[in-house]
Amino acid sequence: MNRLDAQAIEEIAVGAAVLGSGGGGDPYLGKLMALAAIERYGPVLCIDPEELQDDDMVIPLSMIGAPTVVVEKIPSGRESGQAFAMVEKWCGQTAQATMPIEIGGVNSLIPIVVAAERGIPIVDADGMGRAFPEMQMDTFHLAGIRPYPVSLVDEKGNRMLFETEDGLWLEALMRSATVTMGGTATTAGFPVTGAQVKTHAIPKTLTQARQIGRVLLHARRLSRDPVEQLLEVTGGWMLFRGKVVDVKRRTEGGFVKGTARFAGTGEWQGRQWCLHFQNEFLVVEREGIPVATTPDLIAVLDTETGMPFTTERLRYGIRAAVIAMPCHPAWRTEKGLETVGPRYFGYDLDYVPVEQRLEGGRP
Amino acid sequence: MNRLDAQAIEEIAVGAAVLGSGGGGDPYLGKLMALAAIERYGPVLCIDPEELQDDDMVIPLSMIGAPTVVVEKIPSGRESGQAFAMVEKWCGQTAQATMPIEIGGVNSLIPIVVAAERGIPIVDADGMGRAFPEMQMDTFHLAGIRPYPVSLVDEKGNRMLFETEDGLWLEALMRSATVTMGGTATTAGFPVTGAQVKTHAIPKTLTQARQIGRVLLHARRLSRDPVEQLLEVTGGWMLFRGKVVDVKRRTEGGFVKGTARFAGTGEWQGRQWCLHFQNEFLVVEREGIPVATTPDLIAVLDTETGMPFTTERLRYGIRAAVIAMPCHPAWRTEKGLETVGPRYFGYDLDYVPVEQRLEGGRP
Repeated sequence: MNRLDAQAIEEIAVGAAVLGSGGGGDPYLGKLMALAAIERYGPVLCIDPEELQDDDMVIPLSMIGAPTVVVEKIPSGRESGQAFAMVEKWCGQTAQATMPIEIGGVNSLIPIVVAAERGIPIVDADGMGRAFPEMQMDTFHLAGIRPYPVSLVDEKGNRMLFETEDGLWLEALMRSATVTMGGTATTAGFPVTGAQVKTHAIPKTLTQARQIGRVLLHARRLSRDPVEQLLEVTGGWMLFRGKVVDVKRRTEGGFVKGTARFAGTGEWQGRQWCLHFQNEFLVVEREGIPVATTPDLIAVLDTETGMPFTTERLRYGIRAAVIAMPCHPAWRTEKGLETVGPRYFGYDLDYVPVEQRLEGGRP
Repeated sequence: MNRLDAQAIEEIAVGAAVLGSGGGGDPYLGKLMALAAIERYGPVLCIDPEELQDDDMVIPLSMIGAPTVVVEKIPSGRESGQAFAMVEKWCGQTAQATMPIEIGGVNSLIPIVVAAERGIPIVDADGMGRAFPEMQMDTFHLAGIRPYPVSLVDEKGNRMLFETEDGLWLEALMRSATVTMGGTATTAGFPVTGAQVKTHAIPKTLTQARQIGRVLLHARRLSRDPVEQLLEVTGGWMLFRGKVVDVKRRTEGGFVKGTARFAGTGEWQGRQWCLHFQNEFLVVEREGIPVATTPDLIAVLDTETGMPFTTERLRYGIRAAVIAMPCHPAWRTEKGLETVGPRYFGYDLDYVPVEQRLEGGRP
């Protein structure tokens, strides 16, 4: 058990951008909202899943929509509380805690706002261990937990509640509502019990985000290479260092899809790499051979500072280290790969865990 | 106070198709559902608004979406009850009655299903006095009554609840949800009080629909001209009789838009007429001069039988009498015309009441 203060929020914001695998939305706005909330209401209690009672009600909270829109369509600040209250009203029950549904990007920080306002704890866990773009892409879905009720609230005061029998309908209905609302909204739910969080959530991911953020924020001060440091704390793999020589982006079906081409630098000089993305970084190839794929995490880090790039910030000339980190084992199951494996996203590739792909040595 | 039995339902179905002004959906499916419900649960009590207590909660019920889709995407039969129950649960209150929100088309009959299942009365009133295509086009909207909560349920079991600050947002969000659900769905809400129904609903419209249906069903048996009979009971105006010589239809923004051209017959021989529609019949012109426009009701009736044609059934060769009936005075106010006047639908025309347009005599 510990308290999340301003420093913790700064660290989580950086770590969540790394765990976002290029997606999940730039945490900057979420950071400002979380900082404002704890300044007003005081630090937020962060508890382990094990500290929950089995019958506690935990309501996850997040934003949904296009990360690029959030920057221009600023939340009013009331959405989180309204979204949370709708689910409580529908359930006729008060929540004992909140939690992130994804640890990557802005959504690691949004639940802190409600936790501060209500004086309830945030659980040190999430449902992805990274960021994924669709509503059904979480470990509660893998466990077959019913995905309702879920609320959706926009900055204009429009409020909706969803009960759908499966996560794919939830995704379809919430996506079209979010588009009509203008591209982004805030969502609370579905509620899970303390017992379900203990069994099915991915634990300690706020702590992990914070640890990553701390490394990256302090490595340079300590004159250490931030990327090397990061690989140490995450158990990740260096794929290559290189320079972006081309970026292609298109908007298709509500997603930003594209590829970035890299020319290797340093010991990777003379080799070509290609990074495929759909909101998140999904596949890295070296001259046609895949070296890392979803659901393993892929991060693109500034060579100098170690700071992560999101997909929308990739551009010609960037010098980056591209790394991969093993995903949570839940994603490596049959249902996990059906839900978020390369084929779900339309790549004609079987999933092979990154550590197996790389065990013959450096790519 | 009276009971709606099978004969009443047959009559209402015909009358509602006339009041639908070409839209509102073919009442056939609604008739079958209503007949099945009263066969199982017995006739439904139909009460006057004045029989409501001022603090009674009345929940209107209707279908939403493309009338042509309903024929292929058959409701499961559970939607009405589920939609109704969601609004009751959200309000923490049981409804004392239901009512149609529009009297035109299929939606005059859908509330009978819930009334039968629950043993509650249906109020002899509606919120339009005809059919209109959008959610905010009702007299409660004109009165500034808050348009929530509203539920939306599809045949797959997906359930949604909406709270929006205004009717235009309600329309936008429900329309995109309905499209995602496959084109049609069932909606309950927003709840109104007995006092609001007495003050703002259009009374006696189920009775009116039934009266029209009775005339058309029995006129031929009595060897009387059904159209002349109809004009007598509705206070309507004959615009012309003619033959359809051309129909143009296009689907645009979720509506069926188009025009039908008529060549006059009998005493109207030698003249050309044009009927513009967007789901409903909206404007009738004689050689470029408007003779009737929304919100007045326009109906196209089979010359022989007096049975009404909906917009989707207009085709080359049909011989029809085209009539107009004055709309309820609520639509002739400034806010009424802003909401459903010719300009709202994109016609560069001022509204002139049909009886004024025609007072110079026959068009």
